[in-house]
Amino acid sequence: MAAGPATQEDTRTRLLATALRLFTEHGVEGTSLQMIADALGVTKAAVYYHFKTKDEIVEAVAEPGLRELGQVIDEASRLRRRGARIDHLLTGFVDTVVRHRALVALFSSDPGIARALARTWTSPEENFSVRILGILVGEESDLNRMVAAHVAVAGIALAGGSPQFAGVDDDTLREQLLDVGRRLLGRPRRVS
Amino acid sequence: MAAGPATQEDTRTRLLATALRLFTEHGVEGTSLQMIADALGVTKAAVYYHFKTKDEIVEAVAEPGLRELGQVIDEASRLRRRGARIDHLLTGFVDTVVRHRALVALFSSDPGIARALARTWTSPEENFSVRILGILVGEESDLNRMVAAHVAVAGIALAGGSPQFAGVDDDTLREQLLDVGRRLLGRPRRVS
Repeated sequence: MAAGPATQEDTRTRLLATALRLFTEHGVEGTSLQMIADALGVTKAAVYYHFKTKDEIVEAVAEPGLRELGQVIDEASRLRRRGARIDHLLTGFVDTVVRHRALVALFSSDPGIARALARTWTSPEENFSVRILGILVGEESDLNRMVAAHVAVAGIALAGGSPQFAGVDDDTLREQLLDVGRRLLGRPRRVS
Repeated sequence: MAAGPATQEDTRTRLLATALRLFTEHGVEGTSLQMIADALGVTKAAVYYHFKTKDEIVEAVAEPGLRELGQVIDEASRLRRRGARIDHLLTGFVDTVVRHRALVALFSSDPGIARALARTWTSPEENFSVRILGILVGEESDLNRMVAAHVAVAGIALAGGSPQFAGVDDDTLREQLLDVGRRLLGRPRRVS
């Protein structure tokens, strides 16, 4: 194995995976830098080399999922037809949830992660859900659509992150969640 | 106003309403008996007259909602036809969620309430969700039904407790959540 930068990158990746596992087990607030160092079998100084605070680790753990979701929302907003906006958002949202199941589960069960992120992101969850619901519901404030969209978004996130479906492979789970979402949002069951 | 037992009962009711409000604002773990006493304008001794520990208060706050949900599940289990079981459970679940919106919101956002209840209830949420999903999905382990039922239960609970619908009256919200649930579970839109 090569030494130098590649190994540092490898340590960072392992550190983030270990942190996510510990956050899931003990909550963000119940996890210390020392616990992360112990689980990795390194010194606390080695953790400090990569991150100065626990909040920085939380940000780095959450960043890929939040960035992907932000991109999906931006792309969907730029589409002209309403149906296309909804389809793009729903597909991208389901993709992101399935790809980042462990992170999604953490967001659904531990308010500590939102608190840790609040310092740098202005409540990303809040912002994202307002923008997502805006695209799914559209201009009219139709209560039926609003309730259906809310159930779809919250339900897909919770079901996608649930241990009940941990054994289901990504493609299958994606297909099932998409099907449920399309039904709720009144979209054709298969987009051609 | 009459003094004596009626007033004690009144204090208990006010105490539970105040506790639920403080739990919602500060989390269960961030709320102390002293804070509850201060908010009520009584001494800590007056709180101790009704409850010895914060966990006892949490139990009393959660009890009406959990008891109602338990009854609905028991009633549904006793019905013979599968469609009738699903309809009864769905209607009763939506009723309970709408009637106890603030409690449902607390369960969705604060793991502290489940931790506080774990002492006396063996994880009521877990048990209830296993029994609810069992009734909604039935014997066959059809993944499509399982995902739809999971999205329905989680989505109805989160949407029902969401501040977004705080201004919607009980009857209207109940009707909308039922409609969404029936669509997801493949039940007729109106039960005659």
